[in-house]
Amino acid sequence: MRSALRLLCCLAALIAVAPSVAATEDPEAIAAQLRDRALAGDGIAYDFVSELTTRFGPRPAGSSAEHAAADWAAARLRALGFDGVEIQRFPLVGWIRGEESVEIVGAHPQRLAAAALGGSPATPEDGIEGEVVPFDSLEALRAAPPGALAGRIALVNQRMPRIAGAYGALVPGRLFAPGEAADRGAVGLLLRSIGTGRARFAHVGSTRYRDGRVPLPSFALAGADADQVERLLALGKTVRVRLHSQAGHVDTHSQNVVAELRGREAPDEVIVLAAHLDSWDAGTGAIDDGAGVAIVVAAAELIARLPQRPRRSLRVVLYGAEEVAQPHTPETGGAAYLERHAAEVGNHVLAMESDFGAGAVQALSLPGGVAESEFGRALYRVLTPMAVVPSREPPGRGGVDIAPLVEAGVPAFVLRQDGSRYFDFHHTADDTLDKIDRAELDQNVAAWAALAWLAAETGTDFRALSAAEVDQ
Amino acid sequence: MRSALRLLCCLAALIAVAPSVAATEDPEAIAAQLRDRALAGDGIAYDFVSELTTRFGPRPAGSSAEHAAADWAAARLRALGFDGVEIQRFPLVGWIRGEESVEIVGAHPQRLAAAALGGSPATPEDGIEGEVVPFDSLEALRAAPPGALAGRIALVNQRMPRIAGAYGALVPGRLFAPGEAADRGAVGLLLRSIGTGRARFAHVGSTRYRDGRVPLPSFALAGADADQVERLLALGKTVRVRLHSQAGHVDTHSQNVVAELRGREAPDEVIVLAAHLDSWDAGTGAIDDGAGVAIVVAAAELIARLPQRPRRSLRVVLYGAEEVAQPHTPETGGAAYLERHAAEVGNHVLAMESDFGAGAVQALSLPGGVAESEFGRALYRVLTPMAVVPSREPPGRGGVDIAPLVEAGVPAFVLRQDGSRYFDFHHTADDTLDKIDRAELDQNVAAWAALAWLAAETGTDFRALSAAEVDQ
Repeated sequence: MRSALRLLCCLAALIAVAPSVAATEDPEAIAAQLRDRALAGDGIAYDFVSELTTRFGPRPAGSSAEHAAADWAAARLRALGFDGVEIQRFPLVGWIRGEESVEIVGAHPQRLAAAALGGSPATPEDGIEGEVVPFDSLEALRAAPPGALAGRIALVNQRMPRIAGAYGALVPGRLFAPGEAADRGAVGLLLRSIGTGRARFAHVGSTRYRDGRVPLPSFALAGADADQVERLLALGKTVRVRLHSQAGHVDTHSQNVVAELRGREAPDEVIVLAAHLDSWDAGTGAIDDGAGVAIVVAAAELIARLPQRPRRSLRVVLYGAEEVAQPHTPETGGAAYLERHAAEVGNHVLAMESDFGAGAVQALSLPGGVAESEFGRALYRVLTPMAVVPSREPPGRGGVDIAPLVEAGVPAFVLRQDGSRYFDFHHTADDTLDKIDRAELDQNVAAWAALAWLAAETGTDFRALSAAEVDQ
Repeated sequence: MRSALRLLCCLAALIAVAPSVAATEDPEAIAAQLRDRALAGDGIAYDFVSELTTRFGPRPAGSSAEHAAADWAAARLRALGFDGVEIQRFPLVGWIRGEESVEIVGAHPQRLAAAALGGSPATPEDGIEGEVVPFDSLEALRAAPPGALAGRIALVNQRMPRIAGAYGALVPGRLFAPGEAADRGAVGLLLRSIGTGRARFAHVGSTRYRDGRVPLPSFALAGADADQVERLLALGKTVRVRLHSQAGHVDTHSQNVVAELRGREAPDEVIVLAAHLDSWDAGTGAIDDGAGVAIVVAAAELIARLPQRPRRSLRVVLYGAEEVAQPHTPETGGAAYLERHAAEVGNHVLAMESDFGAGAVQALSLPGGVAESEFGRALYRVLTPMAVVPSREPPGRGGVDIAPLVEAGVPAFVLRQDGSRYFDFHHTADDTLDKIDRAELDQNVAAWAALAWLAAETGTDFRALSAAEVDQ
């Protein structure tokens, strides 16, 4: 993959000495030139994600680091020549991890590599102790009768295979296991990390609130530590674990950073290019979602260098508070954006989100009607040389940040990335800059720049084409 | 490599149905049969290291876990039929990590992935703050004038390449940088982890004492975090860091576990098969040195199953307090063994140590005179089918545990292993059982069993052959 990308970069470098962008007015040709400039490394993505992650480190939703990152990003976007750069605050009840530990007590005492799941409540000062009861899956836990876990700690120990779709299949375990365990009398929950890496990191993430809270102290265990517990049980041992956490909530705020390239002919027709600035609290959020931030900013910045703005408005939205999103609460960047821009949602012609690391773009999901259109054909022609194929999957909700827009009727396109290593690092302390391959990052910028340009320059009505598809 | 090993295992399984060991008296043929049984998986190594690391987790020198692991190992060796199993205690001033943190303070606050180096003293309760001054190497630090680091924190930021010998080249940085920094007025030391892995773990290890103590609070930084500091400095920032540690010392003890297969004809001629039971405190010490423990025990156990003991005595020694070894102190397993067995050192005919993980054996280092002997030729014939070649390197001191014996004149042989991934995990929280490949572990057992058997059955005088080499 990488050597193929390098070859593309070399080819692109040759192409880049061809006549300049201003010399042609054919949108497809300009899209190809944007693509090739990005592939040649003529974009700001790597420097952007490097600075973001280096200056601010982890950026949990509502933290000072997230606020400072938003201020910095807004200033940088202004300096890059974006129009109407704005920071749009919204209130947030933030979650702070504090000190924590998970340890086996009794005859085989040992500390385990673990981390509280997002929103998990504090334990009493002395912790909570209980015997571990293992389950192979959420479904196995659900099969346990009421009271079966009285005073105990449930361990959901399901392994994640390295295949597309596995994360989505396992995430319900993280969302719902705390509640299901509580319903059966448990005093705590351990979840085998939902991740593919073999390194000994806990993979955290949000769990689903009930009545505004996570019902139980709930921790992700590193895979190696879930194995350790399993082996002790196999030796015939009772495994008692002590959970300790000082986690708590605090009234704070988060914010979306909004910046435009205002359309030269149809400025009210808005295309949202989305990513999120917040991250989990142990890593520096390089792949989740510093990469996405860098990709959408760098793609728009390449377009900003053209002699004139595209027809429609391109609106970069760097969301806050994505990682802590709960359904049906206004305390997320996506909901806050929708609320603030409710009056103009009807003019949003397209929304796209980059939130899957820096792995190469491999496929494009378009609504069926769009895929069959002249616009769709031109787009594929531009993307094909980068090893991009049509996706068999529909765009769906397009991502957590833009889901509220999509649910309000805005069409979504999805550039699908190579995610085969994404879940090695996702939501761990190991999500750091060195996990980003610069050539693959630039390939993303190439696809985003070409797509954003074509979508902003065309008069095609994506909404009508998407609706047509639904009628078929 | 692995598929080659599997093929060997399959072949060995076929060979194993050949006439039983008792049917021949040719030592070389018996060595080949021991080898093939081990390759076929007929050894206890994997179960041994699995139980050791699962039951006791991390086993820092002098800890309750190390004591309990020694008790368990002794009981297990007795049950396996070893002779004269004994736990030999010695006093130890143990080091306990306690809570600790390293964080950047000021305009870009963020916590770094770091861990105090072994023996590092506690900081004051509020920590120690200082500006970071980076150096590319220990030599660069040594070039700084006296007073150059007054009130500051030195960072030795040397990267380790993935090549044999790199660890030895960089370890002086860990041993001596604290003292060199202290000499120049520093208040703390940060050391880029000496390791090859990209995962965000601090690689710890001992530093050299001065007047019985580590002169400065000294921490290993994960590579990604050393990069982070370097990038902040490159952005023109002053980087101030706060070090905090509650580390301390405690009077305790450690122990060597000694177990023999007493020689049937020359029981006073002793061959030591060495590994160590203690580990660093974050991982479970699976590759360092649970693997070595399992290899030497399993090799001897295969020999114990033969109809009769070999001519000479095979003595398995599972050392304590290897990781904390300081030169010229009796508080290490190696020194304690030498002291206890001083009267019989002249009868120690050979010492060997397994302390380099579970990577496959690839080469054999023998003293020159031994390599040229009939014994050496037979040994190579038995090891060759496992992809083992003669090593260009001399045996040297053979390992930390047996170095005192070697310095007292005992010859050492070394089975050199594939260490290309060893330093990805070495001395980190990620040194866990899943890093051991069972087939490679069994290949080690095969080489050790064949070698130990041949060395114990022969009458060859290794000491005389080694001395002859020196005279050449």
